[in-house]
Amino acid sequence: GSSTSNETASPSNPVKLSSDDLLVTEEGGVQTITLNRPSKKNAITVKMYEDITSLLNSSASNPAIKATVVTGNGDYYCSGNDLSNFMNIPPEGPEKLAADSAILLRNFVSSLIRYPKPLVACVNGPAVGISVTTLLLFDLVYAADNATFHTPFMQLGQSPEACSSFLYPRIMGPAKSNELLILGRKISAEEAFERNMITRVFPKDELQERVKEIVRELSELPHQSVVKSKALIRSSFTDLLEDANAKECELLRERWLSEECMQAIMKFLEKRK
Amino acid sequence: GSSTSNETASPSNPVKLSSDDLLVTEEGGVQTITLNRPSKKNAITVKMYEDITSLLNSSASNPAIKATVVTGNGDYYCSGNDLSNFMNIPPEGPEKLAADSAILLRNFVSSLIRYPKPLVACVNGPAVGISVTTLLLFDLVYAADNATFHTPFMQLGQSPEACSSFLYPRIMGPAKSNELLILGRKISAEEAFERNMITRVFPKDELQERVKEIVRELSELPHQSVVKSKALIRSSFTDLLEDANAKECELLRERWLSEECMQAIMKFLEKRK
Amino acid sequence: GSSTSNETASPSNPVKLSSDDLLVTEEGGVQTITLNRPSKKNAITVKMYEDITSLLNSSASNPAIKATVVTGNGDYYCSGNDLSNFMNIPPEGPEKLAADSAILLRNFVSSLIRYPKPLVACVNGPAVGISVTTLLLFDLVYAADNATFHTPFMQLGQSPEACSSFLYPRIMGPAKSNELLILGRKISAEEAFERNMITRVFPKDELQERVKEIVRELSELPHQSVVKSKALIRSSFTDLLEDANAKECELLRERWLSEECMQAIMKFLEKRK
Repeated sequence: GSSTSNETASPSNPVKLSSDDLLVTEEGGVQTITLNRPSKKNAITVKMYEDITSLLNSSASNPAIKATVVTGNGDYYCSGNDLSNFMNIPPEGPEKLAADSAILLRNFVSSLIRYPKPLVACVNGPAVGISVTTLLLFDLVYAADNATFHTPFMQLGQSPEACSSFLYPRIMGPAKSNELLILGRKISAEEAFERNMITRVFPKDELQERVKEIVRELSELPHQSVVKSKALIRSSFTDLLEDANAKECELLRERWLSEECMQAIMKFLEKRK
Repeated sequence: GSSTSNETASPSNPVKLSSDDLLVTEEGGVQTITLNRPSKKNAITVKMYEDITSLLNSSASNPAIKATVVTGNGDYYCSGNDLSNFMNIPPEGPEKLAADSAILLRNFVSSLIRYPKPLVACVNGPAVGISVTTLLLFDLVYAADNATFHTPFMQLGQSPEACSSFLYPRIMGPAKSNELLILGRKISAEEAFERNMITRVFPKDELQERVKEIVRELSELPHQSVVKSKALIRSSFTDLLEDANAKECELLRERWLSEECMQAIMKFLEKRK
Repeated sequence: GSSTSNETASPSNPVKLSSDDLLVTEEGGVQTITLNRPSKKNAITVKMYEDITSLLNSSASNPAIKATVVTGNGDYYCSGNDLSNFMNIPPEGPEKLAADSAILLRNFVSSLIRYPKPLVACVNGPAVGISVTTLLLFDLVYAADNATFHTPFMQLGQSPEACSSFLYPRIMGPAKSNELLILGRKISAEEAFERNMITRVFPKDELQERVKEIVRELSELPHQSVVKSKALIRSSFTDLLEDANAKECELLRERWLSEECMQAIMKFLEKRK
């Protein structure tokens, strides 16, 4: 059967969500987390980071859940980190905000690194920033043919996160990795496929149905084989990824307090008005 | 000159083979090992694992051999592990069978990891299971355009072997690696080429001749340059590969004794009747 | 403004070059090093190795330089190591030459590994040997559509250098890596793109202009973001690359003194007459 939970926790989904910004459904052992801020292109707020982290950590040990899918509602998959996250400066000052943000990010990324069951991304449209870099931490990634992939970290005075500084050059070579992480070029779904970032590209109007079929198949495979094989595959990466995650968050904490970053974000927000 | 040895050992090939299931020829310093069970799609038996391991270990130190080619006789390259290997349960019980099989596999894979001379695969048709995963341990891999590559480990309640858990995500990224190792999707020669698993795809009826030319060229290169360069290239991998090999065999030993695996194999064998 | 310096050092470029074999210009914070021996297909001499190493080490700490481009004058990007480097045997004998050459090479490669700012290759035509292997140490690599990539190390009795023994199999898989490093096959710009060696292929007559635009863009990005992100990305590689560099130079030192290598170079030089 299928169930939707957002504001209330349930036995199979004990996480009480903060708002409607995420939708969580469960069907046939598959948990689907839908980014649900279409008017903001599904930009991720502090609460959403916390809730996704909780959902992953909770379902990791929930025997009813065999796999988790992440997707977006509306035209975008996700426009990345909500820049308004930088605006709520606490009384302790920007240093506190930067330190808290680094911990938030590190825990979020760590929950992806350590998720023990198949994690599937269903990229329904353009993806920006952290919604792109995290893709290499998923086990399977399916994208609509109109999806784009864009990581304009330098343009915002920042630096790569979600282990992308480690995984990108290894997966696609430095020459193509730096075109994304340093130059900030936007690429198409087809290019992302050629760069080994995604499993398959599907026509936009077939994507959800195709992913549903694949995930059903996945949930019906011998589960211990799947979970133990994933653990084996991940075992040679985990320490390296956690180390990259720590270094990336430390650099970002520093970057967020830099003049370069503050000016770049200000410029971006003014242009957007 | 050319010579064929199967049941009798010779000075240049001191390995006495157990049966006709392997053919071994030697020509111009190139040893060719042909999987020769076409009626069984060249499925690999316990004896064949042992003989290939011996052939590799023996030719490793034989100065007359400059390179080794592995290919298959008939339509298939190899249908993988012969499942009848699981049927000969010794008096000591299935634990003994699983432990012995894990040692057999580990030694076989180790002989590929440590082979000091060029190792060339000539994939003459469909490849399944361990005949696919081992390809990344070869130095050069040529495939017929009708070859396919299929690793249905989960469907059989098992887990990846031959260092594929380590090498696959590194060579083609996790998103494509998991499509093979976890989902068990079958891919074409062209797709295997795009995923960096193989060197070149040749038309089926040109394959053997093209590989012969390449291997002749290889055997005529300054041999110490080749052997020492291979050792250098392999040096940063060997310990990591042996470690992956050990962990994979340990998990497989456990998997082979699992309810999931026994039921999956039973189901497969019944379907095949 | 733009300035050219070759025989004289200047405040912004304190390196005094040995000859016109390199041209160094600086414009808008971008240093361009042009290999300038078109009659010798830009083969690299001992002096050129020394000068490039000095230019990189010097500009690394020069705040006026935001990025460095390497390109070639004429039809070739670079035909690799000038084999006449092997002809000037010092009074101490070939062992001294081999030892000195290994140190020269190791320092040259190390200056590429450790260069802290964006390093961009503009491959204007065919590239051979060390001018190919070094490309994976650049951050961005753009090639003319008529460029070719060729590393005939075995044919010359030698072995791979510039960390290619480490990076090549990791970037394109062993099957394709060995086709280049062991078999010595020449590939096209399009193939090098598919193998993740280069960022983009441009039409030959657009190359210089396109790279100029990209490098201008690069030099205008928040510089600390770029430099610190590059350091982060490189951090998980540096020790591994320096280790590969050391092992490669040690093997080459040995190879250069081998009978195989001497005969192969002699044969090559005679054929060229």
